[in-house]
Amino acid sequence: MTLRLHYAPDNASLCVRLALEELGLDYRTVLVDRRIRAQRAPADLALNPHGLIPVLETEEGPIFETAAILLWLADRHRDRVALLPAPEAPNRGRALAWLFWMSNTLHPASRIMFYGDAHVAPAHVAALQEATARRIDAMLDRLEAASPELGDWLGGHGPSALDCYLGPMLRWCALYPEGDTGWFDLGTRPRLRALLARFEARACVAAAIAAEGLGEAPFTAPRLPQPPEGSAT
Amino acid sequence: MTLRLHYAPDNASLCVRLALEELGLDYRTVLVDRRIRAQRAPADLALNPHGLIPVLETEEGPIFETAAILLWLADRHRDRVALLPAPEAPNRGRALAWLFWMSNTLHPASRIMFYGDAHVAPAHVAALQEATARRIDAMLDRLEAASPELGDWLGGHGPSALDCYLGPMLRWCALYPEGDTGWFDLGTRPRLRALLARFEARACVAAAIAAEGLGEAPFTAPRLPQPPEGSAT
Repeated sequence: MTLRLHYAPDNASLCVRLALEELGLDYRTVLVDRRIRAQRAPADLALNPHGLIPVLETEEGPIFETAAILLWLADRHRDRVALLPAPEAPNRGRALAWLFWMSNTLHPASRIMFYGDAHVAPAHVAALQEATARRIDAMLDRLEAASPELGDWLGGHGPSALDCYLGPMLRWCALYPEGDTGWFDLGTRPRLRALLARFEARACVAAAIAAEGLGEAPFTAPRLPQPPEGSAT
Repeated sequence: MTLRLHYAPDNASLCVRLALEELGLDYRTVLVDRRIRAQRAPADLALNPHGLIPVLETEEGPIFETAAILLWLADRHRDRVALLPAPEAPNRGRALAWLFWMSNTLHPASRIMFYGDAHVAPAHVAALQEATARRIDAMLDRLEAASPELGDWLGGHGPSALDCYLGPMLRWCALYPEGDTGWFDLGTRPRLRALLARFEARACVAAAIAAEGLGEAPFTAPRLPQPPEGSAT
């Protein structure tokens, strides 16, 4: 069975698309129409009960959660390309630690910035986002400081599931919430900025730009997507 | 090198202790004194730059993030006991999806309930926790509904990293914030309640009760811990 990626342009599915492209795998995409909240329709809830994008359909059943899909793909296809240290490699533990950190710390905090109303009553959204922006600032400072230790597994030096995850997250922080992006600035984080520049030159990114209308420099100079199909929000 | 678990009683390190006990591994514990925020002291930040408990010191270096440690232990020691499906097993993807979901959805939301002040200015904590309690309710409804599909890998039927993670999280929801736990009720989730009862009977739980002062029924009838050393908060 060909892998099927349920996606919306410039959504978390972008991370998975980048990994699929890095691996050179054959896959198809299934557009999820966010404008009608198709991710919450019964057919999609049968694939992912949490009603979120992405889902990767495999011959072993649907897999959800962006980072779970990245890890599963990395482990299953390391004979093609290594996106993460192998289970027996000595740097596996450190790579897993940062993958989970991106998934459980940076990603949920950025979702508060993008979807404030889903986290608190409207009168309190601004206060929550102000505090969350400060938390994300501190997170990125720690990531900037730690990134050299991650060596080949973070930094755009070669194929990396961590880059496929981090690149889009930093892109969204530069774009959302629409019209209110002053909270985010990579200016004080030269390593992360250089990472994005290296990552942006990879072939997987060119493929994603074409498929999802991400613009010429989706990570170093992000602009809102103009996708050939579907809607990012 | 003997594994060294940096822990505080009834903290997220409990999940790792339960897994170490399930695996029958030799390990030592290093108490982190939360009362003086030792997890943020320079020596501890050198192990985990995020200043959080737990850290597992291994001969390959320190590993942080609860779920990363659980996954690493499961993959490295599956010759002893299988805590998760093997990387090549057909149900690996589903188990990873739920492991990441616990880590990036249920755990961060529960941290908002326990540490509201770390997420928003004091005047807005009550509103944030009210909305978060409703989100957790919906999460647990989805977990209750999905739990049969997870079969042997969630439910207290045998050794399981997912049980080692979920059990403590549900315990903390029943105990915290101290004096304000009416938001949490397993009454409408018989499968999760039965899971906790089965899990509680396992030998790993008896070891954790003794080491961390968790009381006779730490999951089905939680009470605040009375640890022989250290402090939970």
